[in-house]
Amino acid sequence: MKQTIKNIALSPDGSAVRILDQTRLPNELVYLDLRRREEMYEAVKALRVRGAPAIGVFAAYAVAMLARGYQEGTFFESLEADCAYLAASRPTAVNLARQLDRMKKTALVHRGESAAQIVERLRIEADAIHDEDVAMCHAIAEAGLSLLHTGDTVLTHCNAGPLATTEYGTGLGPLMLAAERAIDIRAYVDETRPLLQGARLTAWELNEAGIDCTLICDNMASLAMKQGRVQAVLAGCDRMAANGDAANKIGTSGLAVLAKYYGVPFYILLPSSTIDLSCKTGTDIPIEERDGDEIKTMWYEKPMAPADVRCWNPAFDVTDHSLITAIVTEKGVLRPPYQKKLEELFA
Amino acid sequence: MKQTIKNIALSPDGSAVRILDQTRLPNELVYLDLRRREEMYEAVKALRVRGAPAIGVFAAYAVAMLARGYQEGTFFESLEADCAYLAASRPTAVNLARQLDRMKKTALVHRGESAAQIVERLRIEADAIHDEDVAMCHAIAEAGLSLLHTGDTVLTHCNAGPLATTEYGTGLGPLMLAAERAIDIRAYVDETRPLLQGARLTAWELNEAGIDCTLICDNMASLAMKQGRVQAVLAGCDRMAANGDAANKIGTSGLAVLAKYYGVPFYILLPSSTIDLSCKTGTDIPIEERDGDEIKTMWYEKPMAPADVRCWNPAFDVTDHSLITAIVTEKGVLRPPYQKKLEELFA
Repeated sequence: MKQTIKNIALSPDGSAVRILDQTRLPNELVYLDLRRREEMYEAVKALRVRGAPAIGVFAAYAVAMLARGYQEGTFFESLEADCAYLAASRPTAVNLARQLDRMKKTALVHRGESAAQIVERLRIEADAIHDEDVAMCHAIAEAGLSLLHTGDTVLTHCNAGPLATTEYGTGLGPLMLAAERAIDIRAYVDETRPLLQGARLTAWELNEAGIDCTLICDNMASLAMKQGRVQAVLAGCDRMAANGDAANKIGTSGLAVLAKYYGVPFYILLPSSTIDLSCKTGTDIPIEERDGDEIKTMWYEKPMAPADVRCWNPAFDVTDHSLITAIVTEKGVLRPPYQKKLEELFA
Repeated sequence: MKQTIKNIALSPDGSAVRILDQTRLPNELVYLDLRRREEMYEAVKALRVRGAPAIGVFAAYAVAMLARGYQEGTFFESLEADCAYLAASRPTAVNLARQLDRMKKTALVHRGESAAQIVERLRIEADAIHDEDVAMCHAIAEAGLSLLHTGDTVLTHCNAGPLATTEYGTGLGPLMLAAERAIDIRAYVDETRPLLQGARLTAWELNEAGIDCTLICDNMASLAMKQGRVQAVLAGCDRMAANGDAANKIGTSGLAVLAKYYGVPFYILLPSSTIDLSCKTGTDIPIEERDGDEIKTMWYEKPMAPADVRCWNPAFDVTDHSLITAIVTEKGVLRPPYQKKLEELFA
């Protein structure tokens, strides 16, 4: 794996969160140092940093940085306010809320200490979250790779690679690991409209890693499966409900329906931190809707639709658990029925 | 219906085929006068004129115009050569080959007449093909509308509207007719990557006709169906095999699988001239593959994928007859099983 890019880190002087601006890929490698909470919110909202696990790591560092500016007497009020503010930037990804909660709890545990001491605790906790993410992704990749065979071609959607995490990725993890071990596994890459994370990010990551990949439009997946070009579908996840229903990038549920129809295994790969047992089913997961201009005008040289046409732009959909062949976490491979096995992950 | 645009006609002096260049929509209304066969071939290949029925009408006028330049002694050799040349411009759409054959037969029937007389016969035949197309589309629209209910919202793919025919359209015909009669039927419009015929052409046509429409990306159809936003899927067809398998714009087969899964009726609307009984099943239909650069670079302001990434760009897919709820032609509505009923259309 040639990937040496750090998509989330502290700036060298430790005063800012440094991110790779994913909206500029594949054309430019631009890093941003974020210090103010408004910049951090915007970075998540505008998808400069994206991918459920990556957003969680980013949020942890964001809180660690923001806490440096808190006053002794109002430390916890400021912390609470900033966490609530950042949590609103992407409502669907559970890792964001989860890691913000973990950071708040870390501060509370050290309530009796000085502000400076708590700030140091938060930085250490953010590093821990980061390290855990790398270890989790490696374990997911290992478990996912056990489901594939030499010579397989997989279909990917959106970007669940290193950029969406901090290493390996979730959905792309098995491919990255296969490449490290010189195992021949290839990929079809859905471009993933409207924001083209597949074309811009996944194709770029696979190319960088030297993995054979072919870019297609989202609506070509049906023919690819029908012609037997694909032996498995690998997808990440932004939030999984207690019954295994999985919210992920818009279009994932359609791929799962196609995979079932054509008899292709459909796998969801995610860290267990993305499972939200407080959501009983997928209907409890909030689905973010984004500005319709993303469909009409982004990435286009000239208007490609009538200027006044209405657009509907849901950013995610929920894949029913009945369509998922296996769920892969850092703790291994789960087969249906999922409900009890998902609960046991947290027992 | 406010549509008064003529997408295919003879130029005022009768020396050229005049087309509306559909690649310039929705930004510019540009007409082209085509006189040379290379220009005509290019117009079809580059999708300046597109839609199976429209290509058939265009081919008829193209032959009528080209025949004006044929020499008395080599008239039929020239005709044969030009028809073979034009037929290669889009291999999937059967109407192209069919109308070229009809023009050749018309000339042969009048073999004994002078070149000038045959040229006149060919122009009359092209006009007849044009008139028949309008009448067929109207009948398809009427039959299709019988399947819908006031208040329905339909999902459309690619462009099967007036631009794809010469009036009303096939897949969009029922909506156009409903609008004329002030019946409230709305549409979700798949943008239809890679060339965005839905966003550029269908959204534009529906807007012009005052029909309520909402543009979505292709991968949003699954969620739209799951949420009950769509009561029927309407699609056109480029070639139908004897068993009802239907070749249409890439992505159509995926919509049909989704519609079946979500219990939404899936209708194919086409003139019977698009049915090719010589193809036993969909596997006999040639599927055009186009340049991968259409995915990577067309319509984009800046590169949205790594420059060296491989693309696969099939322009059509085949929807299995088992996924089609009804087939609508100018002769009415057919329900499965289709094989015998399709044969009877030609009895």
